[in-house]
Amino acid sequence: MMKAAGKLPRGYSEIGEDVALIPAKKGRVVFKTDMLVEHTDVPPGMTYRQAARKAVAMCVSDFAAKGAKPDSFMASFGLRKGVSQKDVDELALGLADAGRRWGVHFVGGDTNEAEELVIDCAMVGFAEKTVTTRSGASPGDVLVVTGEFGYPPSGLEILLHGAKAKGRFGRRATQSVLEPRPNLKAGLALAPFLTSAMDSSDGLARSIHTLARESGVGFLLDTLPAGEGVESFAAANRLVLENLVFQGGEEYLIVGTVKRSTLEAASAAAERAGARLLPIGVAHKERKVVFRKDGVSRRIRDMGWTHLR
Amino acid sequence: MMKAAGKLPRGYSEIGEDVALIPAKKGRVVFKTDMLVEHTDVPPGMTYRQAARKAVAMCVSDFAAKGAKPDSFMASFGLRKGVSQKDVDELALGLADAGRRWGVHFVGGDTNEAEELVIDCAMVGFAEKTVTTRSGASPGDVLVVTGEFGYPPSGLEILLHGAKAKGRFGRRATQSVLEPRPNLKAGLALAPFLTSAMDSSDGLARSIHTLARESGVGFLLDTLPAGEGVESFAAANRLVLENLVFQGGEEYLIVGTVKRSTLEAASAAAERAGARLLPIGVAHKERKVVFRKDGVSRRIRDMGWTHLR
Repeated sequence: MMKAAGKLPRGYSEIGEDVALIPAKKGRVVFKTDMLVEHTDVPPGMTYRQAARKAVAMCVSDFAAKGAKPDSFMASFGLRKGVSQKDVDELALGLADAGRRWGVHFVGGDTNEAEELVIDCAMVGFAEKTVTTRSGASPGDVLVVTGEFGYPPSGLEILLHGAKAKGRFGRRATQSVLEPRPNLKAGLALAPFLTSAMDSSDGLARSIHTLARESGVGFLLDTLPAGEGVESFAAANRLVLENLVFQGGEEYLIVGTVKRSTLEAASAAAERAGARLLPIGVAHKERKVVFRKDGVSRRIRDMGWTHLR
Repeated sequence: MMKAAGKLPRGYSEIGEDVALIPAKKGRVVFKTDMLVEHTDVPPGMTYRQAARKAVAMCVSDFAAKGAKPDSFMASFGLRKGVSQKDVDELALGLADAGRRWGVHFVGGDTNEAEELVIDCAMVGFAEKTVTTRSGASPGDVLVVTGEFGYPPSGLEILLHGAKAKGRFGRRATQSVLEPRPNLKAGLALAPFLTSAMDSSDGLARSIHTLARESGVGFLLDTLPAGEGVESFAAANRLVLENLVFQGGEEYLIVGTVKRSTLEAASAAAERAGARLLPIGVAHKERKVVFRKDGVSRRIRDMGWTHLR
């Protein structure tokens, strides 16, 4: 399996050696590892190919939010005893899908026997100086997100609990779960403008609270960045729209802050990279995260993504 | 847990950010990931602290064999539901033990829920130009190992199957399983002399066969590098000495080749680093791995370490 992902450029070691070699660039090595575990991260309907692709997407999403270009990744697999060759081939295809999509080299990994599917993706990239942190937001900064929320939680409701959805919305929602699409290009384009940022993989509310806590600020939100169709899906299935938007997770969008003076330029940069930058609030001194709608203020709780079961 | 391992030097990111930053050095980034899975890698008697330490040791061992200095590591944990805080603290202590022992920085990681303990260690280091490969052995090169074999398989027989051992040997054997000690210093000192090398974590026979296959050579062995006391332990427990030495695994020693002309200098370098370099055979053109003892030649089978269960 490990040799399946195609030839590496000059300067890289061959796959299958005991360690991988990557040509170093000046500055900093950016390093990240993220573990996908079957029973919490692989919903019904997700193929092995999609699971492998997702494990890589989880790392790419962090690189995108931090504005660092990923270079290479390794994947360690824990495989169920008696896993079929077809499943193993599917995993290799998923790694190759991800490598192509985000332009990142698969440089090796190892396989082990485990009681459920486990995929640990370790990713290495480079940054000339530093990367965007969680702690750089100041009062007055505009809170922005790189897209609309609610599709993956809606998709999980469909896949896990049989929630009903109309054709087009249902496909979009489930697809957002099965094949997450962190926008690396947008992350790299936005990085010069972001004063703080992280990805939204644990949910929008969790990300906002983390930025608030680490930056020593609070946020006043005035916009609910709900995806098209999420509100009617919520109504049809007796779900709370705000929960789907704030508490869902798995969106792999960027949540960050920009100076008001650069908002226009940041929006233009995002647009050139195929993303839409949505301002949803503003940072303030008071350390609370509040959503104000129709003159009514409500605290947003710091609750994130919950396990599949 | 993730903040437990002490302060990092200047130029490194703080633990707990979404990605870790490591000051880059010139040349190549050396990258490795290795997954420890409870039911195959954690024998009875191994504490959580020792398991975490072992996960790091598994990566360090590869860096040692390749002659590359590790710089930093991340650890991803899959933890059983309901794991105690004490166990989590033990895991952090094990990472700290390993970091101190081998001078490598813990820069972050993540925790997840899994059906058994899984620890994936990802390690990054630097090499000015390249590292020792598996494929550089030529006919005439001397086959060397950096210590004696048979302690870990004996220890596993004691821990898993209740084999009997005298006090001192028993402690040494079980300790070698519970706290593997790859000799990084010796690996770095030997690297300039090694024409090919890898670690012996999958067993001596497997390592020799891999070097043979990748280098396109065979090996004629004339010495059985059995640890002191392994022969009498084998006899007392009706085990086959050669199996304990060749097929055991988990030794985390280096198996490699050196030019005959540099053997003396390589031995001196190993000794200065606290290791004993044992010549055990020679590479030849015929692609067979043969052990000759008392005038009788036997093929050594390519069999490695087998799972704990």
